[in-house]
Amino acid sequence: MYEHHAGIGRNHRLVVGNMLTLDGYKPIENGVCAPKGFLAAGINAGVKKGSKKRDLAVIYSTVRCTAAALYTQNKVKGAPILVTQEHLKDGYAQAVIANSGNANTCNSDGLEVAHRMCNATAKELGISPNDIIVASTGVIGQPLNIEAIEAAIPSLCKSIHPKGSDEAADAIMTTDTRKKEHAVEFSLTDGTVCRVGGISKGSGMIHPNMATLLAFITTDVNISLEMLKQALHDINEVTYNMVSVDRDTSTNDTLAIMASGLAGNKEITVQNEDYDRFYKALYAVLANLAMETARDGEGATKLIQCVVTNAVSESIAKAVAKSVICSPLVKSAMFAADANWGRILCAIGYTEGDFSVSNVSVDLASKAGIIRVCEKGTGVLFSEEKAHQILLEDEISILIDFHENTEYGAVAWGCDLTYDYVKINAEYRT
Amino acid sequence: MYEHHAGIGRNHRLVVGNMLTLDGYKPIENGVCAPKGFLAAGINAGVKKGSKKRDLAVIYSTVRCTAAALYTQNKVKGAPILVTQEHLKDGYAQAVIANSGNANTCNSDGLEVAHRMCNATAKELGISPNDIIVASTGVIGQPLNIEAIEAAIPSLCKSIHPKGSDEAADAIMTTDTRKKEHAVEFSLTDGTVCRVGGISKGSGMIHPNMATLLAFITTDVNISLEMLKQALHDINEVTYNMVSVDRDTSTNDTLAIMASGLAGNKEITVQNEDYDRFYKALYAVLANLAMETARDGEGATKLIQCVVTNAVSESIAKAVAKSVICSPLVKSAMFAADANWGRILCAIGYTEGDFSVSNVSVDLASKAGIIRVCEKGTGVLFSEEKAHQILLEDEISILIDFHENTEYGAVAWGCDLTYDYVKINAEYRT
Repeated sequence: MYEHHAGIGRNHRLVVGNMLTLDGYKPIENGVCAPKGFLAAGINAGVKKGSKKRDLAVIYSTVRCTAAALYTQNKVKGAPILVTQEHLKDGYAQAVIANSGNANTCNSDGLEVAHRMCNATAKELGISPNDIIVASTGVIGQPLNIEAIEAAIPSLCKSIHPKGSDEAADAIMTTDTRKKEHAVEFSLTDGTVCRVGGISKGSGMIHPNMATLLAFITTDVNISLEMLKQALHDINEVTYNMVSVDRDTSTNDTLAIMASGLAGNKEITVQNEDYDRFYKALYAVLANLAMETARDGEGATKLIQCVVTNAVSESIAKAVAKSVICSPLVKSAMFAADANWGRILCAIGYTEGDFSVSNVSVDLASKAGIIRVCEKGTGVLFSEEKAHQILLEDEISILIDFHENTEYGAVAWGCDLTYDYVKINAEYRT
Repeated sequence: MYEHHAGIGRNHRLVVGNMLTLDGYKPIENGVCAPKGFLAAGINAGVKKGSKKRDLAVIYSTVRCTAAALYTQNKVKGAPILVTQEHLKDGYAQAVIANSGNANTCNSDGLEVAHRMCNATAKELGISPNDIIVASTGVIGQPLNIEAIEAAIPSLCKSIHPKGSDEAADAIMTTDTRKKEHAVEFSLTDGTVCRVGGISKGSGMIHPNMATLLAFITTDVNISLEMLKQALHDINEVTYNMVSVDRDTSTNDTLAIMASGLAGNKEITVQNEDYDRFYKALYAVLANLAMETARDGEGATKLIQCVVTNAVSESIAKAVAKSVICSPLVKSAMFAADANWGRILCAIGYTEGDFSVSNVSVDLASKAGIIRVCEKGTGVLFSEEKAHQILLEDEISILIDFHENTEYGAVAWGCDLTYDYVKINAEYRT
């Protein structure tokens, strides 16, 4: 994909391809198990009758972790969120228990069920229920088969192992077509080698106004709760909050992080150089998981990246980028590899905020090249054939430059709108 | 459809079926030509090469009319809008010229072309170009063939006739599958019989934050400019502004009204009983055109009406109603006749504003019956079979009651999301 300024710093230019990489942050294997002290597993518990898919995941740390989480801003919140909020009040956690197949949301026994999931897991792992992060994803408003989950938790917890990230990533998938895992290794100023890893799920009902769906992040960095929360909040703003599949903000979105401290560095307690290094590592993991979420949007055939530069403010840059990747008409045109730039301009134009479109230019880019389709807010002559070739690729960048000579920019990620989106969602529950 | 409070008064209960009717407001034929003094016509001008579809419409009043209009709030505005705004500064107009097939938007010669359309029409009708409302709809960013339009205007203007509303309604259609026309007759307090009529087009790129696409309204009521503007603004808020097909606010939306005064009543200059009667007539016309717009949404198989009652405020009622009819997941479920009420609750929950969902109930209704699917924010046992039967109908009501014991409510109209929406928009330009 096209080079762009990332949301992590004005001077940072990234090349985005199948993976976003930062110099000094080495992608490594094993997702949430990559950082020291973390084990995981995933099994089939039979949440959905007859399904043999893995549907129950556990992530366990050998030591109690500093922990924080962000949740959906939907007023309808899944019961697991309320329980996790309560458990994270003290800033500590040691395990995650999560199921797919049922969201445990809008059920009258929801809180009781979420507590029972924590209690069973805590008992098996020999930790306090209060140190458990619980999450559920799937259909809303149908009773969760807690007996099946309770019956499966002992064997799930017995099977935790240092390569279990993969199983856990698999177990939290719903309509996802691929697992979402990422981890990086980096060094602090004193030479301590640290890791950040994560798994994530989410394909439909994705328009986070916070975190999207379920994402569990681990790190072995030793960092204070305050700094951990700060980094999670800020990075979420430029990663998950810049992804949209269908503008439906889910009821269960949870982005949780656990820091074991086992890397052994001196605790990060202020925004120093080590904080910045951790920040970038966390950015690399979350940005990759967020991009993967967009790429795997329900029915999607393409990842669409919208890069806005030289806007009058960062908030307007973000709003414009999201507006474009959210437009069903732009998304449909991308599906058809049709350079219908008028729809892009239309989506720019209905973005709220005080800005002018009179100097805006639009380029379309992919591995196959780059082409300018609009300048100073009006069309320019371009080769439809070349534009079509560019849009046939499965990673498309829409580059919007307001030419206001500022440093304000933003990146958002979305996907095309296809027949399969309708198909998946017209048949999901039945 | 289900009975509901309309936006025009708390005590007004309407039965909405294929047509919304108000006691004392008789639906009549001839759309924009129903009011005294209006003639219209529509022909094929060859805006799109090879197309034989009517694509150029004129509406003419035998006398100069008090006139007002509302426009899209998109920052990218079609050139015709800028010209119409200029022409309506004095509050008068006598004709509408409108083409489909090309939006004349984002073109460097757009203003010149829009002026040339007005000039040619004015010359032929023997009126001032300044009294012309001009509008274009269709693809954005491609030069409009003004020569073809100029060549067609003389024969178009010669063919105006008192039954021409139908032709004009046809000529402004793009991806619409049916003409949208409505007119009503009513009496003022002094017994004067008056009429309001309208035609409208719009199927995709419909998420008005003002008016949707093109709607031209005529009336023979004698009314001051100030009162005309007031009525247009207020009714637009509860009709077109409550419709969404795809959340894409167009660049060319124009809702224009011309009042000939030929009914002969004493001019309405204050909000008296006659103003109220005119207001209701205008509501009946706009609400019907707006509903027809939703029903004819691109690819739609169903009209979906969301009725919110007992909310904590009117603005929250409106926001919730729009949120529900906008949700792609709700829309997909309606396409499948799937009573997936969790998605409705989710869409309620992500609506901005300060309100609680703990007492909310949701019913699904159609000609086939009514069924409660959610109470106090959680699911209730219901017959999936009966719910499915209800949702198989082509007009569905989603009834949301917040049980806050208030009089605040709202109605919004949308449609289902189908394979054909994707098909139409993936192939539109090519």
